[in-house]
Amino acid sequence: MFDLHPRLAADTLPVVELGLSRLLLMNDRAFPWLVLVPRRDGASELVDLSPEDQMQLLREIAAASHALRRVVRPDKLNIGMLGNLVAQLHVHVVGRFRQDRAWPGPVWGSGPAVPYDEAASGHLVGRIRAALPQESTS
Amino acid sequence: MFDLHPRLAADTLPVVELGLSRLLLMNDRAFPWLVLVPRRDGASELVDLSPEDQMQLLREIAAASHALRRVVRPDKLNIGMLGNLVAQLHVHVVGRFRQDRAWPGPVWGSGPAVPYDEAASGHLVGRIRAALPQESTS
Repeated sequence: MFDLHPRLAADTLPVVELGLSRLLLMNDRAFPWLVLVPRRDGASELVDLSPEDQMQLLREIAAASHALRRVVRPDKLNIGMLGNLVAQLHVHVVGRFRQDRAWPGPVWGSGPAVPYDEAASGHLVGRIRAALPQESTS
Repeated sequence: MFDLHPRLAADTLPVVELGLSRLLLMNDRAFPWLVLVPRRDGASELVDLSPEDQMQLLREIAAASHALRRVVRPDKLNIGMLGNLVAQLHVHVVGRFRQDRAWPGPVWGSGPAVPYDEAASGHLVGRIRAALPQESTS
């Protein structure tokens, strides 16, 4: 049984289940920001995963990256696995713009989240789902 | 011909050449901090690499992670691909401690680097080289 960490559950909106990971949208319209959480209890580091799971996670990071690029056309992608506050292994894939609040600094700790209204998050989640490669969500 | 970005060259010390990446030590004794730079001209995003190179980079991130864990026994690893300031694709693998300067925030932008003295960096580089899996450096 996979349990999403309560902090991640509170801060995000569900997008879709991928082969290994639950894909989430950070509920912060300051940044187009996806989070992947591998459904593996007890993993907190990339190297806690088996080599096979690491490869699958990489494929899902690439799929999330491509989808985010297609949908929001960011100037840069930022990918991070930190976990200093939430030990459950999770990967941030963030679209960055030269005009965003934190540029060129990192998004983490850059200020309070600005929640989406429901229509806006629903629209974005739909576009991200549609931009994912077919095979990653089947 | 692979050219390391001048900013990365200035901020780091060489560790070893891996199969795909040049492994570097950030010259900042505030954090045990490795940087991998794939020798692929023009790549700035993970997804700019071929799928095969992405897999190789993942193996090298895992090798660097294991080596850093063995040598410094951090409380947490932080892995990041940002590139907002330096476009050349590079991966940060940082050992974090609950007592370090930036905890629990990210290391990027947390303050000026504190350079090693030559004996200390040489010692650490030697230990990291020795802790890498044999096959990754051959």
